Amino acid sequence: MSLLVTGSIGIDTVETPFGTRPDVIGGSAVYFSHAASFFTPVRLVGVVGEDCPKNLLDAFKGRSINTAGLEIRKGSKTFRWHGSYLKDMNEAVTVEVDLNVLAERAAKIPQEFLDSQYVFLANTHPALQLETLGKLPKVKLSVADTMNLWIQTERQHLEKLLTKIDGLVLNDGEARLLTGQKNLIVAAREVLKMGPKFVVIKKGEHGCLLVSKNDTFVLPAYPADKVVDPTGAGDSFAGGMMGYLVTQGSLTSATLKRALAFGTVVASFTISDFSLAGLSFATREQIDQRWEQFKSAMSF
Amino acid sequence: MSLLVTGSIGIDTVETPFGTRPDVIGGSAVYFSHAASFFTPVRLVGVVGEDCPKNLLDAFKGRSINTAGLEIRKGSKTFRWHGSYLKDMNEAVTVEVDLNVLAERAAKIPQEFLDSQYVFLANTHPALQLETLGKLPKVKLSVADTMNLWIQTERQHLEKLLTKIDGLVLNDGEARLLTGQKNLIVAAREVLKMGPKFVVIKKGEHGCLLVSKNDTFVLPAYPADKVVDPTGAGDSFAGGMMGYLVTQGSLTSATLKRALAFGTVVASFTISDFSLAGLSFATREQIDQRWEQFKSAMSF
Repeated sequence: MSLLVTGSIGIDTVETPFGTRPDVIGGSAVYFSHAASFFTPVRLVGVVGEDCPKNLLDAFKGRSINTAGLEIRKGSKTFRWHGSYLKDMNEAVTVEVDLNVLAERAAKIPQEFLDSQYVFLANTHPALQLETLGKLPKVKLSVADTMNLWIQTERQHLEKLLTKIDGLVLNDGEARLLTGQKNLIVAAREVLKMGPKFVVIKKGEHGCLLVSKNDTFVLPAYPADKVVDPTGAGDSFAGGMMGYLVTQGSLTSATLKRALAFGTVVASFTISDFSLAGLSFATREQIDQRWEQFKSAMSF
Repeated sequence: MSLLVTGSIGIDTVETPFGTRPDVIGGSAVYFSHAASFFTPVRLVGVVGEDCPKNLLDAFKGRSINTAGLEIRKGSKTFRWHGSYLKDMNEAVTVEVDLNVLAERAAKIPQEFLDSQYVFLANTHPALQLETLGKLPKVKLSVADTMNLWIQTERQHLEKLLTKIDGLVLNDGEARLLTGQKNLIVAAREVLKMGPKFVVIKKGEHGCLLVSKNDTFVLPAYPADKVVDPTGAGDSFAGGMMGYLVTQGSLTSATLKRALAFGTVVASFTISDFSLAGLSFATREQIDQRWEQFKSAMSF
């Protein structure tokens, strides 16, 4: 059961108290696809420019990630982001961002991906998310991420998207902005009224919260004593969560909760090193081991 | 098995988005003793001034709280605190504080309390905490709280205290201030090196963290959709935790974890209403019910 993801693929420059890494691999779809590929085959849809370094494409090799939907667009430039965590490891300050190819038309979905039943719409313009979803007639489970920019500037498109998806993943600040509610449980319930069956609020180092019609549950983050680079933690969380959900094929309380815990654990590998290094060297066995340990630590 | 607590007893004025309550009952020892009394008999040691309103003393009636150590000091004034949560429900801004009687000598420990085996030294000057502890020769389990002020101004006394106690409870900002470490797990490990067997870091709405030689575990806060007044949440947490620990008489991983969960649940009653109202109307049955629900929500 393949999981289609569309989102950004980019070149990041990241500053953290542990150092600076210029021109490393980044982007929401990159972290998501790596994280989800531990669980289920991933179909990647995204676009880069012709300046894209060769090792960006190498990063997908040897993984269960089908890159048939990765378009290298001539005459365009790859998305670039420069962020700093020097002030606060829980929130990046954007030093510079060049949308480049992301400001153009969306990537084309290959014919062979059109039968996808599971889809994750990583953060991008909600009109593009709607467009992508509209092209996939067989979708059984669709989950989207979003960001402050779209909540503020593209609310109509976002509200339409919310009536079409099963789940929304967003961070605490975004949930408050979207609903005007400070209390996150109240905010999540407001989001449910807008359409989705479940809402996951990511709180960075403080864990996550899931609210659905029947469930409200919270999980702390995995207790990490060394956070080197938080970039991609949220996308890795979503990838681990969705990857596991696809293998289960249901949205029961139990599968949702386990999926959140897998997301939590996968993200803990991401933040342990710069860029994709933490996730690249992880194995499914290590993930399962850490999941069992987390599960046992959470039971009392 | 009685649990002795010494700390502040005061009159609070509290402003939250839900309203303002002038001259309500407050103080660390008040919240702590109420919370702990659901589990085990409590011996209260504290001092108020002669201006103390009669209903402050009424608040202890009908509970398993021995007030033989509550001194009403003639010629002195009761401790007063005026705080505001209008800006941030997770952190009070102190509008005004009058130490009054707290700036004088400590309360006298009654003869009948001198055999206490379990003691909680709620936040006060570490020299006074040391003095109290020194007067209790039969202590088997001692846990203390502290605050920024003492970390900054009375570090020597505090460091001496840390070599004499079994556990330290403090909040995230205080743990960072005490150790100079940003990562809370690293900070907690640094505190362990200073003496205590276990450290509990309270993170307010983000839950808590326990680190001991053998254990590291985190718990989220109880998911509350209505927080009316966070005053006393940390002291109620400590009271629930200590009250349960006393009934168990051991510091195994299992008892510590369950104790944290009881603290979490008891605090969730405190924050549901102003001052002591949330805790006053709770029953042990409701606490146990919510604990079971929290336990089940945490298992996956």
